Amino acid sequence: MVGSASEFVRARYRLAVPVEAAAERAEALRYEQTVELPREAVQDPFVEKEILPRVEALDPVEGGVEATLAYPVATTAHDPAQLLGVLFGNCSLQDDVALVAVSLPDSLAAALGGPRFGASGLRRLTGVAAGPLTCTPLKPMGLGPERLAELAALFARAGIDVIKDDNGLADHAFCPFEARVRAVQEALGSVAQATGRRVLYAPQVTGTPSTVRRQLETARALDVRAVMLSPALLGLPTLQELARGEPELALLAHCSFAGAPRVTPEVLLGSLYRACGADAVIFPHAGGRFARFDVATCRRLAEELTAPRPGRRRALPVPGGGMSEERVEELLRFYGPDTMLLVGGSLRLGGAGLEARARAFVALVRETARRLAPEAR
Amino acid sequence: MVGSASEFVRARYRLAVPVEAAAERAEALRYEQTVELPREAVQDPFVEKEILPRVEALDPVEGGVEATLAYPVATTAHDPAQLLGVLFGNCSLQDDVALVAVSLPDSLAAALGGPRFGASGLRRLTGVAAGPLTCTPLKPMGLGPERLAELAALFARAGIDVIKDDNGLADHAFCPFEARVRAVQEALGSVAQATGRRVLYAPQVTGTPSTVRRQLETARALDVRAVMLSPALLGLPTLQELARGEPELALLAHCSFAGAPRVTPEVLLGSLYRACGADAVIFPHAGGRFARFDVATCRRLAEELTAPRPGRRRALPVPGGGMSEERVEELLRFYGPDTMLLVGGSLRLGGAGLEARARAFVALVRETARRLAPEAR
Repeated sequence: MVGSASEFVRARYRLAVPVEAAAERAEALRYEQTVELPREAVQDPFVEKEILPRVEALDPVEGGVEATLAYPVATTAHDPAQLLGVLFGNCSLQDDVALVAVSLPDSLAAALGGPRFGASGLRRLTGVAAGPLTCTPLKPMGLGPERLAELAALFARAGIDVIKDDNGLADHAFCPFEARVRAVQEALGSVAQATGRRVLYAPQVTGTPSTVRRQLETARALDVRAVMLSPALLGLPTLQELARGEPELALLAHCSFAGAPRVTPEVLLGSLYRACGADAVIFPHAGGRFARFDVATCRRLAEELTAPRPGRRRALPVPGGGMSEERVEELLRFYGPDTMLLVGGSLRLGGAGLEARARAFVALVRETARRLAPEAR
Repeated sequence: MVGSASEFVRARYRLAVPVEAAAERAEALRYEQTVELPREAVQDPFVEKEILPRVEALDPVEGGVEATLAYPVATTAHDPAQLLGVLFGNCSLQDDVALVAVSLPDSLAAALGGPRFGASGLRRLTGVAAGPLTCTPLKPMGLGPERLAELAALFARAGIDVIKDDNGLADHAFCPFEARVRAVQEALGSVAQATGRRVLYAPQVTGTPSTVRRQLETARALDVRAVMLSPALLGLPTLQELARGEPELALLAHCSFAGAPRVTPEVLLGSLYRACGADAVIFPHAGGRFARFDVATCRRLAEELTAPRPGRRRALPVPGGGMSEERVEELLRFYGPDTMLLVGGSLRLGGAGLEARARAFVALVRETARRLAPEAR
């Protein structure tokens, strides 16, 4: 068995209860998340000592109380699905509790594995040794492989570092996965012959576990080095398995369907996606179309993705969600140079001249990063 | 390609906006959920006609407006992950929208497959031809295989129809999956020799896709006929794949982690879990520890699970979540005889005499169902 009996997963919950009711509410949570029995029905000493979490702190905050629970790591079985269930399974059905912070002990972090490539691996794959990376999606859903491949070639010529599928692209009859990946890779190969630079393409894998496995094999056979996936659609355990299995591909995690739970973005997209192996995480930056991602949330999320953690590579934050060229400086000031800037729709306004606009975007990011570099140090 | 161009997935969203802003908000949603581009940037006639959903209705309701969007079925690629993404992927990150109803066209329902066993298959597996079934969990997390097997034997002798793992049971070092399933199956085999009746045991499968696959094979080798899983932890696509693949096992879907999204329980646990193959769905009935499941929600959820749908078997509602013997009549009046009553913790209060209490619970359910039968007709 991995992990010692003295290791704990610590979880902080915000309880929407008055201070005087907090101790009892936290006590109920201890039982709900593990034994699911009334207190009187739990008489086993092993269960009392090694299963039930301890309440380590009750801190009054605005609108309620934050309770810190320390779960013996053995409760998680060192498994991503079980971890999520222990942290927020049953209490996801209770409106007065939100999960706001998680810290994992080393044995669990090691078992989950974290990013296989991480920020440094993505820099290796793209050849961008320092400074921000640039990224844009192939879209919209409805275009066929040839049209998307033309777009990819255009963005590659413009100097974009990472080209990804839009998260609406699946294995559609009008744009099958294999045909799309083949067409885009061929187009990027032609550009690479002309420019000497091979752009990283991350097609989206999506579907049931066996479908995703087939897509990964197809992608690998076509010399793809990275894929995008939405862990909230596919399941967090699927992310964790892909990050450890074959083929070895960098994983860009997209936030689709992940916004809804009363688990804060910094916990789900930050701590847990990184722990389960996301090399980069795509999320909406504050001020776009997604109000729940405010500045403080984005700050904490970036911190969770990039802070040093024993045995876990740093993941790359990819702010997006309605970003535009006008906000490049703001984003680079906020996230620093270890980030990937994702711009989609705003590049696509204005009809013709898309390649010129993409090129200007890349130049703007480079120039702004250079200008800010002394400040950042 | 499955499905005709004239088939639509219809989704009803509750928008927390004033009536005068509803048309514009619904318009933004059309683009957000499919092409993710500004309107001006979408110029392709195929995309306009075959990808973008139509707004079919805008109905004022208390606190906002309900918008009905009709998505061309082709957008879903007839895949469960893509369906979920189209329905609620990006807009899960927007606090002013909730998904409150979904209807699937026949081609998509057929592609997803629905329950393989359904209510009738569970009756066949349990030998309960009519009237409500009874169910209780093996718990708490922390007990070893032998202790859980003793509990299983006790519940089997008491006449319980379905014994399931508590949703906290995983492949723990102190209670490994294989040892637990083997011990419980042997205990139930001994009871069957004495009573002539083999109780259905549903161990929980959980973990990454390959772990779950191994657990299913282990379970099948030990003559298990049903398993429990939490689709919100494992991913909805995993449920759909298990419902169609080998081995053929009945699937009890548990609601762990499913309560949080702003997708109503009747959509997620009702429409989508059934469409993706859950034979039975376990959820908290109104009045237990889970406030968001009110009476009206439970009514709609049961309706989604049991209403006739072309090509989809009925699934069995399994109300639980803090139910007790005192509420048996209320539950049977509410759900009718085509249901499975799940009672856990309340049986476990009072120390010794557990078998007698379980037996009394079974008798109470049978007797109450008989008494109510004329009313139900």
